Amino acid sequence: MSLDLRGDLVRLFRDIVDIESVSGHEGPLADAVEAALAPLSHLAVVRDGDTVIARTGLGRDQRVVIAGHLDTVPVAGNLPSRLADGLVHGRGTVDMKGGVAVALGLAAALEQPSKDITWIFYDHEEVAATDNSLTRLAASRPELLTGDFAILMEPTSARVEGGCQGTLRFTVTTRGRAAHSARAWRGHNAIHDAGEVLRRLEAYRPRTVKVDGLSYREGMNAVDIRGGIAGNVIPDSCTVTVNFRFAPDRDEADALAHCRELMDGYDLEFIDLALGARPGLDRPLARDFLAAVGGEPVAKFGWTDVARFSALGVPAVNYGPGDPLLAHADDEACPVTDLYACRDALARWLG
Amino acid sequence: MSLDLRGDLVRLFRDIVDIESVSGHEGPLADAVEAALAPLSHLAVVRDGDTVIARTGLGRDQRVVIAGHLDTVPVAGNLPSRLADGLVHGRGTVDMKGGVAVALGLAAALEQPSKDITWIFYDHEEVAATDNSLTRLAASRPELLTGDFAILMEPTSARVEGGCQGTLRFTVTTRGRAAHSARAWRGHNAIHDAGEVLRRLEAYRPRTVKVDGLSYREGMNAVDIRGGIAGNVIPDSCTVTVNFRFAPDRDEADALAHCRELMDGYDLEFIDLALGARPGLDRPLARDFLAAVGGEPVAKFGWTDVARFSALGVPAVNYGPGDPLLAHADDEACPVTDLYACRDALARWLG
Repeated sequence: MSLDLRGDLVRLFRDIVDIESVSGHEGPLADAVEAALAPLSHLAVVRDGDTVIARTGLGRDQRVVIAGHLDTVPVAGNLPSRLADGLVHGRGTVDMKGGVAVALGLAAALEQPSKDITWIFYDHEEVAATDNSLTRLAASRPELLTGDFAILMEPTSARVEGGCQGTLRFTVTTRGRAAHSARAWRGHNAIHDAGEVLRRLEAYRPRTVKVDGLSYREGMNAVDIRGGIAGNVIPDSCTVTVNFRFAPDRDEADALAHCRELMDGYDLEFIDLALGARPGLDRPLARDFLAAVGGEPVAKFGWTDVARFSALGVPAVNYGPGDPLLAHADDEACPVTDLYACRDALARWLG
Repeated sequence: MSLDLRGDLVRLFRDIVDIESVSGHEGPLADAVEAALAPLSHLAVVRDGDTVIARTGLGRDQRVVIAGHLDTVPVAGNLPSRLADGLVHGRGTVDMKGGVAVALGLAAALEQPSKDITWIFYDHEEVAATDNSLTRLAASRPELLTGDFAILMEPTSARVEGGCQGTLRFTVTTRGRAAHSARAWRGHNAIHDAGEVLRRLEAYRPRTVKVDGLSYREGMNAVDIRGGIAGNVIPDSCTVTVNFRFAPDRDEADALAHCRELMDGYDLEFIDLALGARPGLDRPLARDFLAAVGGEPVAKFGWTDVARFSALGVPAVNYGPGDPLLAHADDEACPVTDLYACRDALARWLG
């Protein structure tokens, strides 16, 4: 299917949605995106794996990066797309083919933008961070990702969501001594000992903190607990997995120390960690963008790829069509008004 | 292999051990037992499935039931048997082919015992209670199991262990509300709520209670805990499985009420329950037996099939060769002195 970037935006959106692109199978959609962008003489197009990058080279003072991922979570009987009552329904309509459609339309329309623009359409976002193509590109070709400001077109209901929180996970394992449960006093119950770990989590009061003017609300939660050998054995170990979501004013050392302090006396095993991103809304380019878009920016709570741009020194915000609470839902659907709002605001700012 | 019931006891023991009889595969051993007992004219032999029952019919005033199971837990590279330093090593040496060997030897030797005797060699003890052949026989042919006193030849290091404790298991499930862990305040963490369940178990002080002169030590223990959906989701449920081991002075209603009281405010789901057995050592026949065996009787903590005899109105004790703490261990081994001690004491009492 060929994509008509200059035609009706809703038609373009539905065509993109109807090209299935579950993570690992982005090829056909990446082909269609590359084919649609390649003929545009104001853009230099690069294909790297299933990622397509198109850049203007007008020698402007500033460069804006606008990015969206092509992949979706698995289809749940919700394709092909369907338009009803001003909503486009179907897998990927919220996360995040609306943003991809708006970006592709603008990539074609903005032949002489006021800032140079790098359009990025990338793969493998909905899977392990190590497979995300931005991980590869940040290492192999960082110059393709850099700029003065980045907009990740993840769903935000067409509001600006600044930065993102960090996330880490760790396990706490209590150790006991196994014994037959008919002679419990010969053993030591590791599950009972985990009660103290849960008690600390229960009593934990998360911070809400302002960073660059936006309020971030942290959270420290058990997300898993496992213990037990058999129905007649005193358990010798119990493992609690904890997820800490932290505001972008914490660096890695601070986040780890905070967990260690909370679980003082226990050995923690850290499983993964992704730092947050400060919203960076105090920069002049960000202020211009906010003025063009309007509305009050809010904090982004979930971790998103804005943190990757932040790590490269590029302030980044989330801004795109669709309600983020519907991401991955079987009934995800995006209002067409969100598409127009995002397209028009970006065109105003970049036109 | 044919079993020589009147030959050397250690040889008989090792021959029995060397006929593998993991639960469900008792056939060859049951065949050998039946073949060895059938020619003995002082015994009436019944085969029911893989259970063999042999009874004297001398018209004595009293009948003693002596029982042992033929099956073992799975072999762990510990067969064939091995004799070293007065210990016979190998699967089943402790649980409980030593008792089986002593019983078979006595069944042949005691042609004119002072009490009538019912010898029971049964199958499927090391598996679910519903598969235990005593469950079937208690329902279909209870007359084969009844008597005035029963001795279950489970390992007790040749001491008398009276009665047994009861056991029940229940689950407590806490319910929360799932949410993305980046927005934990939209959900409710069911694992954190399980902290209160563990707190009550941790604070629980089990009773030690005397029943018919023996001290029983109870226990209330979490034996399993499970909760969690994914690393980034607030868990909506957490299930704690609790095992209550209770003294034989509690009946079913009392045991259930005690658990409900401890977990007041939670819904409990009871999974299984097996009542204990009072030691019944105040009966005249039991006193005679104790006098013949000697030593101080102690309480049996684990649940055993004595409870089945107790439920049929037959007081029962555990008495057999081998250290019960080695039951099911890969290095289980039984001192030959235990075999002789049990054989000689029973011969004294029944001769």
